[in-house]
Amino acid sequence: MKLLEERIRKDGRVKEGNVLKVDSFLNHQMDMELFEEMAKQWKADFADCPINKILTIEASGIAIAAIVGRVFNAPVLFAKKSRSVNIDGSVYCVEVESFTHKNTSKVIVSKKFIGPEDYVLIVDDFMANGCACAGLIQICETAGATVEGVGIAIEKGFQPGGDALRAKGYRVDSLAIVDSMDPETGEIVFRS
Amino acid sequence: MKLLEERIRKDGRVKEGNVLKVDSFLNHQMDMELFEEMAKQWKADFADCPINKILTIEASGIAIAAIVGRVFNAPVLFAKKSRSVNIDGSVYCVEVESFTHKNTSKVIVSKKFIGPEDYVLIVDDFMANGCACAGLIQICETAGATVEGVGIAIEKGFQPGGDALRAKGYRVDSLAIVDSMDPETGEIVFRS
Repeated sequence: MKLLEERIRKDGRVKEGNVLKVDSFLNHQMDMELFEEMAKQWKADFADCPINKILTIEASGIAIAAIVGRVFNAPVLFAKKSRSVNIDGSVYCVEVESFTHKNTSKVIVSKKFIGPEDYVLIVDDFMANGCACAGLIQICETAGATVEGVGIAIEKGFQPGGDALRAKGYRVDSLAIVDSMDPETGEIVFRS
Repeated sequence: MKLLEERIRKDGRVKEGNVLKVDSFLNHQMDMELFEEMAKQWKADFADCPINKILTIEASGIAIAAIVGRVFNAPVLFAKKSRSVNIDGSVYCVEVESFTHKNTSKVIVSKKFIGPEDYVLIVDDFMANGCACAGLIQICETAGATVEGVGIAIEKGFQPGGDALRAKGYRVDSLAIVDSMDPETGEIVFRS
């Protein structure tokens, strides 16, 4: 998606350790006009799918998923990173490793909000090793829901997550795929 | 706001320990059409304010803030609950106590995204003791930003947060204020 790639070039910064900082528009301060254009792109790309639920994981995916939910006219569900006192009853729980936070956390989704009647679009801001996404897919499939696809804002194409999911047959629609980036020069190469 | 009160009566559940579960539409699974109506209400209520930034705190506030940002045509900023490797440089940091999670966490906002040029609407799903909100106000004021108001979906009117902020002169616009609720009968009394 041209608009997103241009924004990454303009406002993103490449840091050591394969970190792409896009906190001015994507995952700390967030540009809702951009998110709306991203959501419309996914809406067009998945026009053939009966998507009736948007699933993401806290925290950075939530705002994108919210706008996607508005555009798809579908409820949004986010996997929570720890058991809160406000969640009782039965939950699906998976362990997810975070590239950003260098840790592993349990994420949960209430069983009552996902089931065989759901055709799910999974949405997140980044994909690196794909662990968060694999966890969300596992929850969907355990629940008997159908994973229609995965919408990612920025995929790090030099890390294995996206291509591994594609190899398994999942439809991964990343709006910008970074094939390489150089912290010395700041150069970013997008997959065409 | 009638629509929200009706939804709380229909789908909310009163639990022991002053817990109001609204996870089917507000803070786990989320109804974006409802959020849009909430955002429009705040837009009307704050029509006289030069709001140019929406501030919330992860995680439950983010989806509401996203839709509010869309309706106000303003960027959304969310305070993060811990220092991630993706945030470097200078941040504002406050300690916030969570009623829901019964713990205290540090929340941070990058200094570069808030300053004297910002007229801020703070948004969150719940207000109980108001600690999260007080923390966000403290960040705004330290940054020299103007707090135009606070938009809360559900205020627990029997807990002191909302009225304490009003007493200090802040404009707190809660769309539903629960003055009492009974876990035995499920009865919920809203402030009129």
